[in-house]
Amino acid sequence: MALIVQKYGGTSVGNPERILKVANRVARWRKNGHGLVVVVSAMSGVTDGLIKLAKEVCPEPSERELDMLLATGEQTTIALTAMALHHLGVPAISLTGAQAGIVVEGFHTKAKISNITPERVHELLGEGNVVIVAGFQGQSPEGNIMTLGRGGSDLTAIALAAALRADLCQIYTDVDGVYTADPRIVSTARKISEIAYDEMLELASSGSKVMQSRSVEFAKKFGVIFEVRSSFNDNEGTMVKEEHISMEKVVVRGVSTEKNQAKLTIAHVPDRPGVAARIFTVLAGAEINIDMIVQNVSAEGSTDITFTLNKDDLPKARRLMDPLVTEVGAREIRAQEGIAKISVVGIGMRSHSGVAATLFRALSENGINIQMISTSEIKISVVIAENDAPRALQVAHDAFHLGG
Amino acid sequence: MALIVQKYGGTSVGNPERILKVANRVARWRKNGHGLVVVVSAMSGVTDGLIKLAKEVCPEPSERELDMLLATGEQTTIALTAMALHHLGVPAISLTGAQAGIVVEGFHTKAKISNITPERVHELLGEGNVVIVAGFQGQSPEGNIMTLGRGGSDLTAIALAAALRADLCQIYTDVDGVYTADPRIVSTARKISEIAYDEMLELASSGSKVMQSRSVEFAKKFGVIFEVRSSFNDNEGTMVKEEHISMEKVVVRGVSTEKNQAKLTIAHVPDRPGVAARIFTVLAGAEINIDMIVQNVSAEGSTDITFTLNKDDLPKARRLMDPLVTEVGAREIRAQEGIAKISVVGIGMRSHSGVAATLFRALSENGINIQMISTSEIKISVVIAENDAPRALQVAHDAFHLGG
Repeated sequence: MALIVQKYGGTSVGNPERILKVANRVARWRKNGHGLVVVVSAMSGVTDGLIKLAKEVCPEPSERELDMLLATGEQTTIALTAMALHHLGVPAISLTGAQAGIVVEGFHTKAKISNITPERVHELLGEGNVVIVAGFQGQSPEGNIMTLGRGGSDLTAIALAAALRADLCQIYTDVDGVYTADPRIVSTARKISEIAYDEMLELASSGSKVMQSRSVEFAKKFGVIFEVRSSFNDNEGTMVKEEHISMEKVVVRGVSTEKNQAKLTIAHVPDRPGVAARIFTVLAGAEINIDMIVQNVSAEGSTDITFTLNKDDLPKARRLMDPLVTEVGAREIRAQEGIAKISVVGIGMRSHSGVAATLFRALSENGINIQMISTSEIKISVVIAENDAPRALQVAHDAFHLGG
Repeated sequence: MALIVQKYGGTSVGNPERILKVANRVARWRKNGHGLVVVVSAMSGVTDGLIKLAKEVCPEPSERELDMLLATGEQTTIALTAMALHHLGVPAISLTGAQAGIVVEGFHTKAKISNITPERVHELLGEGNVVIVAGFQGQSPEGNIMTLGRGGSDLTAIALAAALRADLCQIYTDVDGVYTADPRIVSTARKISEIAYDEMLELASSGSKVMQSRSVEFAKKFGVIFEVRSSFNDNEGTMVKEEHISMEKVVVRGVSTEKNQAKLTIAHVPDRPGVAARIFTVLAGAEINIDMIVQNVSAEGSTDITFTLNKDDLPKARRLMDPLVTEVGAREIRAQEGIAKISVVGIGMRSHSGVAATLFRALSENGINIQMISTSEIKISVVIAENDAPRALQVAHDAFHLGG
């Protein structure tokens, strides 16, 4: 008799037939005696359709009105999901984000959840209902509807689980769980049964986009244990939770790759305070996301600063950097596309030396050249040629015996 | 510098192009210095599409969830309308029914407006915004979204005009205004420039379905002056207001017809108290709408009771009446389809005798037989054969010189 928060994404509720399947799954969990809160996204395609409609009346729609418009997507799904449960004889009631007490703040289209007052959800659960809550949305203290941006429905589910002190939060998606590597690239990849928040975060930031980092960070902050699992089968998924001692026995939890990267080097930058700050302030001001930053020790009073970014942002970044080269007294700027990042992640590597050595040796033995290296406490990332990426991922996976 | 509430129906906002036209019209009124509150319906077809979707997950969807679902229709339109105004450089902001302070009560899918707290609307108007409000919906004191049923958006507009003490309420629709007769039937029909609430009510209940009676009743109760006009041209429409002395100079304001009627006669009903009550309680319990009821003086201790109803309800009414014939001791039941009702409406007829005589004579001179007669203070209705209806309408229109 647990309280479970389940979240179903846009693909899982993509049409009436799938909504009925979701209802069937919810009904089975309820039959086993569990209390259920179900968070749903907009049906897949609906959000894009609404944005298209908006652009037909206004090329650059205001974000406040875009939120008003997009929030109808989830509102449609909650009503349909409640109806589907009724059809199966299960008492259910739908709530918009505002009705569920989800208070948000910040900016339209990318709001943050600031508070949840779950009295109404508790009350409706107490009356025996499955409570269906619209993901991705909430209400500001001024009474405006705001959406949460990418990964917003996951965040709604995890925040509700925290506020309701739920026993478990299940994130239903179109994959079976988190894998030791992308199974489409590495055939021997295995599903991970449990993973620490930090490992999940490092994998997410390294291209394993099962979930957005913000939801995992929120779960970590409030200690919400959640499971990533498939809405298309009954397999157990991956449990994401606080690390515990036995997790450390596994040195490397998984490997990931990120393609479509580019790197930009500003060469012979004078080694004086404030130069790096100047460069990255300009990039941040243009909302260009920077991934790795590498600066080696200086030689003869100057150094090279290299950073990686999405290759789509490269032209813009270059335009911004060109005048800076003169301004800061650097010599030149070099850009390169066609690179990829490979990351090896595991909390166990904190207490095990030699992980880096193993990775570098394996890549070298396979003739894969390393262009850049960056490390965190539980991650080692290397930049290589994009062509080498699939083979490098397989090599790294084998080197740490992740195939079992 | 007036405060105007405008309402645009589903056809007027049926696609992005039409929404832009509505925005243009709103912008023109605003340019003339007026404050504007704009009530919009769901885009035509959207509500039907949502109901279809609902039935795919549940053949008999709950009314609470249907309201949650249908309310997204107007929410979509308000956002798009605000965006379209932004595109024209006009400051605008959208509000759901709940956000606009529209408090409702009663039953889902047919709620009533119980109160409006227009502080937020006032505040946003004060900041120079056009305020776009979702029609057809409000929020119950318990925080549930409820819809107002047929004609709900007209009601929202008129109730808002009352709460805001607006100078004028404009109901934009697909007709130019209220006519002396249906112009598709009577070629000489003229647009009426002003009409009293009671005349509008009697015309509405006689088949001139420009607006639902409930909205007109609400306007009458709160003294809201409104104009019915077209969203497809700039012609002045029909002003609907409290009657004044000069209106009484016009004896007959208009004529209307209602087809698809049937009549049911219960013959030789014993003339004793309670029989009529018994009959119409049974019909009301089955939610059958009865229009005219005629009972003449009794002869030899019995009388005939005849009533008219929509012909679609006739089989059901007959099934209900059959056992009653024996129960109340009547002799037989007679049903007839293929009839129509012609009504002549005007507050001036209160003080003018001879209106009935003029009508009956005109019909008789044209060989049209009168089957039933019913009168109210400002209306005379007759039942005739359905085939005669178009000609009867023309004859009545001519008899009172409504063509001018």
